[in-house]
Amino acid sequence: MDNINRKSALKENEGVVPPNSTNASAIAAIQKKRLQKQTAEELISRITKGDAVALSQGITLVESLNPEHHNKANQIIQGCLPFANKSIRIGITGVPGVGKSTFIEAFGSLLTSLGNKVAVLAIDPSSSITKGSILGDKTRMEELVKNPNAYIRPSASGNSLGGVARKTRESIILCEACGYNIILVETVGVGQSETAVHSMVDFFLLLNLAGAGDELQGIKRGIMEMADAVVINKADGENIKKAQLARLEYVRALHLFPKKDSGWPPEVRTSSALEQTGILKIWEMIQEYIILTKENNFFQNNRQEQNQFWMMETIQEEVLMHFYNAPAIAEAIEKNKKAVQKNEISPFAAAQLVLKTYFK
Amino acid sequence: MDNINRKSALKENEGVVPPNSTNASAIAAIQKKRLQKQTAEELISRITKGDAVALSQGITLVESLNPEHHNKANQIIQGCLPFANKSIRIGITGVPGVGKSTFIEAFGSLLTSLGNKVAVLAIDPSSSITKGSILGDKTRMEELVKNPNAYIRPSASGNSLGGVARKTRESIILCEACGYNIILVETVGVGQSETAVHSMVDFFLLLNLAGAGDELQGIKRGIMEMADAVVINKADGENIKKAQLARLEYVRALHLFPKKDSGWPPEVRTSSALEQTGILKIWEMIQEYIILTKENNFFQNNRQEQNQFWMMETIQEEVLMHFYNAPAIAEAIEKNKKAVQKNEISPFAAAQLVLKTYFK
Repeated sequence: MDNINRKSALKENEGVVPPNSTNASAIAAIQKKRLQKQTAEELISRITKGDAVALSQGITLVESLNPEHHNKANQIIQGCLPFANKSIRIGITGVPGVGKSTFIEAFGSLLTSLGNKVAVLAIDPSSSITKGSILGDKTRMEELVKNPNAYIRPSASGNSLGGVARKTRESIILCEACGYNIILVETVGVGQSETAVHSMVDFFLLLNLAGAGDELQGIKRGIMEMADAVVINKADGENIKKAQLARLEYVRALHLFPKKDSGWPPEVRTSSALEQTGILKIWEMIQEYIILTKENNFFQNNRQEQNQFWMMETIQEEVLMHFYNAPAIAEAIEKNKKAVQKNEISPFAAAQLVLKTYFK
Repeated sequence: MDNINRKSALKENEGVVPPNSTNASAIAAIQKKRLQKQTAEELISRITKGDAVALSQGITLVESLNPEHHNKANQIIQGCLPFANKSIRIGITGVPGVGKSTFIEAFGSLLTSLGNKVAVLAIDPSSSITKGSILGDKTRMEELVKNPNAYIRPSASGNSLGGVARKTRESIILCEACGYNIILVETVGVGQSETAVHSMVDFFLLLNLAGAGDELQGIKRGIMEMADAVVINKADGENIKKAQLARLEYVRALHLFPKKDSGWPPEVRTSSALEQTGILKIWEMIQEYIILTKENNFFQNNRQEQNQFWMMETIQEEVLMHFYNAPAIAEAIEKNKKAVQKNEISPFAAAQLVLKTYFK
């Protein structure tokens, strides 16, 4: 067939593929190169001058899984460090439906109207599954997202909480260097992420709903005890009375908890993000907390402890990761877990067998 | 001098050291050998026949830091495993002064009078410092210590909580194989040891005093949330009313906690170990718990999860121990912690430097 066709007078030569539009590809390449060529020094300089675009680029490098970006990200963090640490870091948690976004919208707008620059970060290790349940739908913060003194960054993705937390922790440094003096870190009150957030903020705020009891079911154990304040949200309309009753119940419950190292007895407030009531009082309360804990040095000590905590956490995480990723370990664990389940071997003897696989 | 002395007529030959009293040393040697010579099989056979002396010898081997004993201990645990797992394991915690010993004395005596065999173990990683603050002073359990159906073993010593916990966990297996059908594990409510105990028992009981609020100061966060029951102890004499008020307050507080996986809502009871009131009700409550959780399979699942937890805990502990004991690691950590403290380096960059020392 081929030969026949070739010989035929009807055969046409195939057309040549037209050359690319030189302009379009060149522009794309130039744009890409410009971003790549931007040195760490340039980015640091722009970030510390308050350039939000550079901040976003910096955080993108911090979040990048590309090993090439790793080194550059470290340089940027290192360069931003001397300009960081001057903010107030506030963690905000609460189960889905409690009105976190509306609250942050109202709270953040209040803060900027008082002359602050506010960065909103989120930590949500499950976001790869729920696909942006948290801060993803930026339209839920319509006002704040248009606010020139607010910076909103959705949750970093990643499959380990440690990894996501690390990225958020480093992003805080960049935001601070960029001049944001109040950092809000949002998280969903259903997992281990609260402990991670608690370890990177100065003040930890738990949002709740009125209704006493039932709505707590979704909140993981231990979160109540970490809270510096519980805010009963949606205290508006018919809810006001219920919210006030719930408040009294929380006051009583918190009274039973051990005193905090900060010397701050956790407070319970009501607020309506919708009607914008109680929001200013919450900010005043946080300021009182800052004054108290700076006076008694808890603020400073806590940050130092947090830094050391993150250093040790990172070390342990990577040592264990190295172990879990070693050849044949997953298999050995699976096999021995089954033996333990069948009561054929004690958990400790099983552990020894797994360890032999690694340390031999 | 030497030569002169030798030649002198005044020189006496040194006397020969009189031979040891053959009997005494022989007896000691025989006793020692008898203990050493006892094979693992012999010990297992004696333990599973209910021989408390053999049980003590077995636990001594489990607790021994001598590597030679390690293998033998593992054999004994392995041999006891098929006879274990048939008991009810109850954790009992509370700050010093709450009356744990008196409570265990009363509770244990009640249990044996009902036909049970009770073993009392303790976990107290601080015992090397406080020198037997817990169960060490056996005279505080005068009755129980003389009771043929009770076995009391003071806390194992050791410098890591993991190590002490492991030994207690393995001792439980031996006690069960020896026929003890109720295991009480005592701990002081001031440290991390509660989490360890919680992970080895079926039911976790928190002892408290009346007085509402203040006495909780000494209890570490999170312990309230682990409790399956809170018992207000010393509810006798003038304390009765106070204890009942405290009870109501705890009921209200526990109501705010999330539901437990066991399906069991934590209960609050009052008791007087001194006047022996409320003790039987506590035992009835625990039996109700066991029935409920065996029906809904939580009991079985929880034990399996605990086994896997201990396997993984042991693995992680040893992997990290290997890291921390590696050459130059302690130094590298110290050095980088200081740099983090001075804000010269981010916690994550510091972690990388330490890790390089290990993995290079």
